[in-house]
Amino acid sequence: MKTISILGSTGSVGCSTLDVINEVNQRSLLDGGDPLFELIALTAHKNAKSLIEQALKYRPKMVAVADEVAGKEVKIALNGSGIEVSIGTDSLETAAKMDSDMVMAAIVGAAGLSPTLAAIKRGARILLANKECLVSAGEIFVNSAKKYGAEIVPVDSEHNAIFQVLDNSNLVEKLILTASGGPFRNTDLQDFVNITPEQACRHPNWEMGTKISVDSATLMNKGLELIEAAYLFAMPEHMIDVVIHPQSIIHSMVCYSDGSVLAQMGAPDMRIPISYALSWPKRIAVATPRLDFTKIAELQFFAPDNLKFPALGMARNALKIGGSAPTLLNAANEIAVDTFLNRNVTFLQISLIVEKSMEKADRMGNLGKMETIEDVMHFDTIGRKIATEIAKSMAN
Amino acid sequence: MKTISILGSTGSVGCSTLDVINEVNQRSLLDGGDPLFELIALTAHKNAKSLIEQALKYRPKMVAVADEVAGKEVKIALNGSGIEVSIGTDSLETAAKMDSDMVMAAIVGAAGLSPTLAAIKRGARILLANKECLVSAGEIFVNSAKKYGAEIVPVDSEHNAIFQVLDNSNLVEKLILTASGGPFRNTDLQDFVNITPEQACRHPNWEMGTKISVDSATLMNKGLELIEAAYLFAMPEHMIDVVIHPQSIIHSMVCYSDGSVLAQMGAPDMRIPISYALSWPKRIAVATPRLDFTKIAELQFFAPDNLKFPALGMARNALKIGGSAPTLLNAANEIAVDTFLNRNVTFLQISLIVEKSMEKADRMGNLGKMETIEDVMHFDTIGRKIATEIAKSMAN
Repeated sequence: MKTISILGSTGSVGCSTLDVINEVNQRSLLDGGDPLFELIALTAHKNAKSLIEQALKYRPKMVAVADEVAGKEVKIALNGSGIEVSIGTDSLETAAKMDSDMVMAAIVGAAGLSPTLAAIKRGARILLANKECLVSAGEIFVNSAKKYGAEIVPVDSEHNAIFQVLDNSNLVEKLILTASGGPFRNTDLQDFVNITPEQACRHPNWEMGTKISVDSATLMNKGLELIEAAYLFAMPEHMIDVVIHPQSIIHSMVCYSDGSVLAQMGAPDMRIPISYALSWPKRIAVATPRLDFTKIAELQFFAPDNLKFPALGMARNALKIGGSAPTLLNAANEIAVDTFLNRNVTFLQISLIVEKSMEKADRMGNLGKMETIEDVMHFDTIGRKIATEIAKSMAN
Repeated sequence: MKTISILGSTGSVGCSTLDVINEVNQRSLLDGGDPLFELIALTAHKNAKSLIEQALKYRPKMVAVADEVAGKEVKIALNGSGIEVSIGTDSLETAAKMDSDMVMAAIVGAAGLSPTLAAIKRGARILLANKECLVSAGEIFVNSAKKYGAEIVPVDSEHNAIFQVLDNSNLVEKLILTASGGPFRNTDLQDFVNITPEQACRHPNWEMGTKISVDSATLMNKGLELIEAAYLFAMPEHMIDVVIHPQSIIHSMVCYSDGSVLAQMGAPDMRIPISYALSWPKRIAVATPRLDFTKIAELQFFAPDNLKFPALGMARNALKIGGSAPTLLNAANEIAVDTFLNRNVTFLQISLIVEKSMEKADRMGNLGKMETIEDVMHFDTIGRKIATEIAKSMAN
């Protein structure tokens, strides 16, 4: 039996993780065995209702709630249950520090940085779903993991795919990240000016939140994943290709220097990479949808259109610069997407805000080294500030 | 450095193996290292010219030639070279028995059985390219390999693909063999009667000999590979699917019970699986063609058409019966293809001859257990005899 804590258990990845754990534990019990996973801690930002339900169903040792008001609600509801309740921003770190074999790092955004780092520092295996750890703080995270002997298993479908078919042969020639191409793959550049937030949020294959849907539509999502892949797999920028693959069946590929290309495929269901992350280096049987190639019929591949989707090139550039550049890029992009979702700028202006923010950050001498999470938060704040100003100057 | 013998060095796979060995040895020498592979023995049926060239270029310890006349020519040519020359059918076994870490079993046809078994019996790692070992004598070979601790690494592109992405997790749900579908994938069944040997030998993706090209056109090739896969990977017939994939980029796939499907892809170049077989469990860098997904553009998948291509079902049936059934099937098919290539029966009659041969073999009580290579040769002869009679009765 493995012990696990889930940071961000009420979010989409957190819920899917609990689903998988519940399924495999139930099956093992039915087969007369022990449960495969034991829950140590669950954490939420402020979704008291979900966290209470999860706590009563899965009986972790403790739950942590960042929001004070929601925390009190949880505390009252779990009174007498024997489940410890910890409240406040620091409680997430407290949860991460509790002894467990694995920690699912599924908190969304910069709030995930400190708790995940706390788990790394005690050498826990990290099932990494939080993007910011590698996008905004890649070097710091990867070095810390090495220092404290913490294994990082990626949960994101693309990185998980690579992780499944990557060997340690040092004969990897190239990683290929696949991208759906988003909803505007076939839209003419001249029509981009009319794109609405509603159109941008209609992702063709995966159901996702608004921010990540817009990132998917601009291809910035793939750019951020490229940065993640570079840090996670210790690969230089030029050894990571992006190919548009609208069917999203091949989740990513590894090209070897003997001519073999290995790929992981699967239905668009996060329980598949989550299962692999939970069971690695083994597998567990899970009732996920199965691929039927005679129904799939066709897989297509295209080169990304750099004119229509400049975000990918910006991400490559930030990765090449390194240091604070990816942090600034990510922060500026969050502001730019937010401004677009609030209908204050057009779709094309998202990338323009990011581009101008990076230029300004450079002029202001903000492209530099980072050594701590505090440095990351510092450059994140700067990126947001610069981008907010630029967005304001562009707003209609 | 690994020592290796190549049984069937003048054939297509044998030549490609020498190509790869030469390339990686030269590169290693240029890098100031030792050669990675040392050649112990090369063997040929009767191609004296090629064998002499190979021997003088690659300097193995010995060469073996099955044909007496060709053998004498080789002996004269290599006189004074220090390379031992062995002549006669038994010399192939002598070559296989010479001490080496690995043996590339690339002799075509039943002639490959005994030499390969001899190599297995001394526990050498077998790089298996000969089809008959697993099609006609699957159980015997797999059991012998287990008994003598000989590892079998498949060279055939489909099985090599599976081998590359198969783990030992016992959570394999299905193997998927891909098939190009051959040149008549889009031909109407009513036009099958007019198919000529020339048309049948035009394989869309790979350059191959006439026999295997016709097998590819009838899908019997995939049926035989299905039998091979079943013995090699210890999988029951119902857990091996065949999917038509005309582009032949995905060489085969493994479906796991967590929903992940792993695939190996590559250009249609035998040096890719040969390289992997030579270097397994590591890889070696080889100058094979690389895939460019933006040029590939599209991968398609279809269910096989059982009406147009009944051979696949016959192979499944033979595999389910087991024992001598696959041996008889393979023997009958060789005769049937030969009769077609000699223009004595039509394309559709190939499968008909096989079907009727299997029925007759059953009626004559020839479906039974096999324990030795002699049993295999016995049933192989029976299969050929029955099929020859049936073919004669059908001949136009």
